[in-house]
Amino acid sequence: MKLEQFIEHTLLKQDATKSELKKLFDEAVKYNFFGVCVNGSNVKYAKEYLKNTKVKVICVVGFPLGACLTEVKAFEAQKAIESGADEIDMVISVQSLKDKDYEYTLNDIKTVKSVCEQIPLKVIIETDLLTKDEIVKACEIIIQAKADFAKTSTGFVKNGVGAKTEDIKLMYETLKGSNVKIKASGGIKDGQKALELINAGASRLGTSSGVQIVTTSDII
Amino acid sequence: MKLEQFIEHTLLKQDATKSELKKLFDEAVKYNFFGVCVNGSNVKYAKEYLKNTKVKVICVVGFPLGACLTEVKAFEAQKAIESGADEIDMVISVQSLKDKDYEYTLNDIKTVKSVCEQIPLKVIIETDLLTKDEIVKACEIIIQAKADFAKTSTGFVKNGVGAKTEDIKLMYETLKGSNVKIKASGGIKDGQKALELINAGASRLGTSSGVQIVTTSDII
Repeated sequence: MKLEQFIEHTLLKQDATKSELKKLFDEAVKYNFFGVCVNGSNVKYAKEYLKNTKVKVICVVGFPLGACLTEVKAFEAQKAIESGADEIDMVISVQSLKDKDYEYTLNDIKTVKSVCEQIPLKVIIETDLLTKDEIVKACEIIIQAKADFAKTSTGFVKNGVGAKTEDIKLMYETLKGSNVKIKASGGIKDGQKALELINAGASRLGTSSGVQIVTTSDII
Repeated sequence: MKLEQFIEHTLLKQDATKSELKKLFDEAVKYNFFGVCVNGSNVKYAKEYLKNTKVKVICVVGFPLGACLTEVKAFEAQKAIESGADEIDMVISVQSLKDKDYEYTLNDIKTVKSVCEQIPLKVIIETDLLTKDEIVKACEIIIQAKADFAKTSTGFVKNGVGAKTEDIKLMYETLKGSNVKIKASGGIKDGQKALELINAGASRLGTSSGVQIVTTSDII
């Protein structure tokens, strides 16, 4: 299996320098990754650097807490698109899920989707913080909101493990029959784990170990 | 020493429920804390709940990575003020400091301050990720940007320790003679640590252990 087109090569730590980003972009081109995933303040740089390549630029929104106002998430998505983002990865309001305020959860996603009509919107549900029931509910709301992907994790939860195969399976079962695909992210460090997640239903992988993954997957 | 008016009672985790927030607000009133520090989506609830009290509502912006666009931080601050925030705690662009792009760092803070002219703006520099030189530089830029506080930490850095006494001393030395005050935050769990930070130069303490602090400080 060719893994490289599953991979969104990711660098989201706040103390990353421009030269670390440049390295990320160069690797994405060299290894023919699907895209790079960066913070809002780096979208312009990424788009400019990658302009003559097929590498997509993915931007996170409301990241990583998802706890800002809905209108702030929408504004941030709009500015990211204006800066050149090809796809948006927003973070859900975990609080609204916990409070069973599903109207809030739905409106939060729908509002961001309304500014992303022309491009894919992924919704990070932060599986590390959710029960199985909450994972199912989040996926149902994502279908209702007409977003394009459900994504497992930000990678920023203290002691979080990120994408788990059992969670991908549960998400896959819930999303079956809809148009919503799955992005697995967080803690994906080698080719074996990557293949396992894809076999469980993931269409994309968010990882900072893309090079390691395509290297190790050659021998599987 | 009366500690309670130093304390900003803080709840920023993304899976906090409304009932956990209510408890935070009730404790802030009961113990006469200076304020509560919450995420953007909870400012309206906080302001409404605390309307007949003296407890201030503090809202974080660009939190916790500080890696969104400057205009997004400014928009977020403006919406927080419209929602009732009495003070804004923004996160610096750590990346621009690391890249020595001080013009970016300065403009980032000045732009947010321009929408916070009537209220205090605190600037979180994330000391856990900075060298001593970078802490000094960040404080110098905060003076230049005419912000009101330098604040140590978000509390969201993996393996971070938060406010260290030696960092507060260094910030105090750098800020001496300016109007910029210091908020210590992150890892402040008891009265002894709180007093140590105040003695080193902190005018405010951001902590989720406010009740524990005022209780233990009684016996010091």
